[in-house]
Amino acid sequence: MPRIDVNCDMGESFGRWILGDDRGMMPHLSSVNIATGYHAGDPPTIRRTVEAAVEHGLAIGAHVAFPDLMGFGRRRMTIPPGDVEDYCLYQIGALEAFVRAAGGRLAHVKPHGALYVMASDDPALAAAIARATAKVDASLPLVLLHRGAASAVEAEGVRLVPEGFPDLHYDRDAHLIIEPVKRAWDPGLVADRAVRMVLDGKVNAEDGTELDVEALSLCLHGDAPNGPEVAAAVRRALTANGIDVVPIAGLLSAEGGPR
Amino acid sequence: MPRIDVNCDMGESFGRWILGDDRGMMPHLSSVNIATGYHAGDPPTIRRTVEAAVEHGLAIGAHVAFPDLMGFGRRRMTIPPGDVEDYCLYQIGALEAFVRAAGGRLAHVKPHGALYVMASDDPALAAAIARATAKVDASLPLVLLHRGAASAVEAEGVRLVPEGFPDLHYDRDAHLIIEPVKRAWDPGLVADRAVRMVLDGKVNAEDGTELDVEALSLCLHGDAPNGPEVAAAVRRALTANGIDVVPIAGLLSAEGGPR
Amino acid sequence: MPRIDVNCDMGESFGRWILGDDRGMMPHLSSVNIATGYHAGDPPTIRRTVEAAVEHGLAIGAHVAFPDLMGFGRRRMTIPPGDVEDYCLYQIGALEAFVRAAGGRLAHVKPHGALYVMASDDPALAAAIARATAKVDASLPLVLLHRGAASAVEAEGVRLVPEGFPDLHYDRDAHLIIEPVKRAWDPGLVADRAVRMVLDGKVNAEDGTELDVEALSLCLHGDAPNGPEVAAAVRRALTANGIDVVPIAGLLSAEGGPR
Amino acid sequence: MPRIDVNCDMGESFGRWILGDDRGMMPHLSSVNIATGYHAGDPPTIRRTVEAAVEHGLAIGAHVAFPDLMGFGRRRMTIPPGDVEDYCLYQIGALEAFVRAAGGRLAHVKPHGALYVMASDDPALAAAIARATAKVDASLPLVLLHRGAASAVEAEGVRLVPEGFPDLHYDRDAHLIIEPVKRAWDPGLVADRAVRMVLDGKVNAEDGTELDVEALSLCLHGDAPNGPEVAAAVRRALTANGIDVVPIAGLLSAEGGPR
Repeated sequence: MPRIDVNCDMGESFGRWILGDDRGMMPHLSSVNIATGYHAGDPPTIRRTVEAAVEHGLAIGAHVAFPDLMGFGRRRMTIPPGDVEDYCLYQIGALEAFVRAAGGRLAHVKPHGALYVMASDDPALAAAIARATAKVDASLPLVLLHRGAASAVEAEGVRLVPEGFPDLHYDRDAHLIIEPVKRAWDPGLVADRAVRMVLDGKVNAEDGTELDVEALSLCLHGDAPNGPEVAAAVRRALTANGIDVVPIAGLLSAEGGPR
Repeated sequence: MPRIDVNCDMGESFGRWILGDDRGMMPHLSSVNIATGYHAGDPPTIRRTVEAAVEHGLAIGAHVAFPDLMGFGRRRMTIPPGDVEDYCLYQIGALEAFVRAAGGRLAHVKPHGALYVMASDDPALAAAIARATAKVDASLPLVLLHRGAASAVEAEGVRLVPEGFPDLHYDRDAHLIIEPVKRAWDPGLVADRAVRMVLDGKVNAEDGTELDVEALSLCLHGDAPNGPEVAAAVRRALTANGIDVVPIAGLLSAEGGPR
Repeated sequence: MPRIDVNCDMGESFGRWILGDDRGMMPHLSSVNIATGYHAGDPPTIRRTVEAAVEHGLAIGAHVAFPDLMGFGRRRMTIPPGDVEDYCLYQIGALEAFVRAAGGRLAHVKPHGALYVMASDDPALAAAIARATAKVDASLPLVLLHRGAASAVEAEGVRLVPEGFPDLHYDRDAHLIIEPVKRAWDPGLVADRAVRMVLDGKVNAEDGTELDVEALSLCLHGDAPNGPEVAAAVRRALTANGIDVVPIAGLLSAEGGPR
Repeated sequence: MPRIDVNCDMGESFGRWILGDDRGMMPHLSSVNIATGYHAGDPPTIRRTVEAAVEHGLAIGAHVAFPDLMGFGRRRMTIPPGDVEDYCLYQIGALEAFVRAAGGRLAHVKPHGALYVMASDDPALAAAIARATAKVDASLPLVLLHRGAASAVEAEGVRLVPEGFPDLHYDRDAHLIIEPVKRAWDPGLVADRAVRMVLDGKVNAEDGTELDVEALSLCLHGDAPNGPEVAAAVRRALTANGIDVVPIAGLLSAEGGPR
């Protein structure tokens, strides 16, 4: 039976500013990535989001980012890998304290925004995040866009989990096209893309080019105007196609590869 | 044999800005309180400071603060205790990740600046910090200026450790007088004050009033121009007077009171 | 013919986080107070808000605040008045550059959140803001909750303009009761309160106590779910009652008192 | 008679953290570039630095930067030019308010750190800073490393002033080699390099390659351990070689080129 993780970036409010319908998304997911304060997520937001995720029985990942509130972590920054490692360890440690306090257990690490995009293509940066991850718990997998940095990550003792984005466009080189403000996507279209990613390992780029996509996890966006509706449609379609939705830990063999 | 902990606030650099002679102080101490990013202490500073403290065999505490880089955490902020609890849990968790990565173990929590002063006099605020502490590890003691908030802290299952300041003036109401920029104090004078605090439980306020000071730990300042010299003099004088310098854990009985 | 200014706090988005329906409010106002980066308002938000305000022909004020993004400037901070003066000069100068670049002219200064509440009751703090204002242009009035600090402000050569809040509750001591997240108020109720403030100088506190309210300006909130609807109702009711809506400058005599 | 401006980056303290010996440098300079809060420079630091510069009769420039306190503005950030323009206008406006309050007049704009390096090589970024400059006052020149972006800057109506660095190394491609913490340089060596830059337009790269350097201004560093000593030596050597030290405005003809 085919299996996939379905995750969503969460806890991206900050103080007075509310972003995303986190509680509306949760029933449709198996995992969440919770912002850790560098691009979003003040501590009360972290606590509330962690508590809600534990209530919903979701696997919780640390959504580590560049220190850039003004740019929401979406701007490339040229930071030495050693400093990135320290920034990530800080953020993972902070989030983990909330997860343990809520009776949960940290399940993975996923960089956010520009750090995600850069680390997916830069083995030195991916290795830095992997080292921070391993310092906390080497059994936590690191989620990235593709397997390009896999050998650098695995050299640090950490497993790389590649991810697919059914509600974002890819360009013909399989890079993501980020929308500054997430718009509504047709739920049926996103659901079809999700199923095809899992069953066929394919997605069409914005220009129609057919791309190979290897994904152990699918990422959906809760800041879309119709985020929960899209997530519900994806979940229904996965189930209807006989695909089991389980957290990443259920997809990894003891040897570290996909089961 | 009388015993006392000698601690120093550390890791208060931030990026390009260097503050305090941390390595110069370490040989003379039993404990350090390391800044956790809210008033000072970017992650590379935290890592370097933690690593040096582990090398020196020092007990490490989380020096949690209000979110106020511009004011170095020294300005009172009126923040609901629930939010302060979340802020502290975030900071303690972040620091603890570095301590564990360096092979150490977090030993205590001590608020910084205005949060220290306010929590010492406000049981609700002290209890908030104690709850954050207990969420990480209820065996970690909470260091405050005096025992005023002891029952509120102990109600959260956390032990309150009162502290003395031989290199700062007290006013006649036993409140600390903070110097905006730490000036050099006479090493012999500080050493005499330290010994008297331990052996007699007394200190003279700035106006000469004799005050009672109960302290299980003495705090020295590494940002004084002659900080290491003062610390060395204090350590020598304690030893010369038959006072054993040990971390806080060595001073607490299993029942929670001082041994 | 009675006259009043109607203002709204604006430009309180920050990067990815959007707050308030600024463009929806503008047709109903005579003035806006634009956030200056310390509690909200990154520079692109400032520019867009200033440009929209100039398009709508609105008087523009600098909405200066404590440096507290995480608390949206709503938490009291104990900062020396000299530093507050510097913080305000920084923020006023930054905003003024955008106003001049858009072809406008800065019209007033109004502190935000905790700084507003504290300065209204603390002449030393109000004087600090007035000094910053005077350094830019002593003809700019300073908007506060009441005339309590008027003599301190006027000693700096600046006029104090008192303000009324038809869409917030007052307690029986005439202090504002701030809602953490602004809720919808009945438009007719707010409109009635606005008209009564202007014509009778009265408002009922939350407990029913009748309070005197002297106001040259009325503040409405654009982050209420129905903010534009409320503002439209207020504007219609003011007009229907023969009250002219004009910016503050039109309400001040050459001598500095209300005309 | 040959002429040159001698400038120094200043006001790079932040709250409790002190950096650089600004007052020690001032007697030897004709211009200063004052940090505007994004990489360094809280408002009280800005005020004190501006006041000291006015006392010393120095020309004052806005030292605008990326929003990166943790990295001291030295890390490349990929920010759309339109946002950079807004960030610069914000910072220039804030600084200008202090300059006018102190009775001075803003004299130039110079980007800091990574923004300086990137804008010197990227005409779109240089044009963005020039547009922000022109919105405040198109007569203010923009200081960059070389004339590479001159036509883009001049298209915005702003003059580009190229700069030389006698106390930093250049690589063989004439790019600066920034030291993470400024070390002491031999004063005589720096003075010789300065004189040679002015009289011959030459400097040797770190590997010995002779480079052409066109400079209307020389930048010295006040955070070197012996900054004032180096600056004094440079000033003496310039004078001894018949070179007049004057602010940038004195070096520009009415037509915009060097006189």
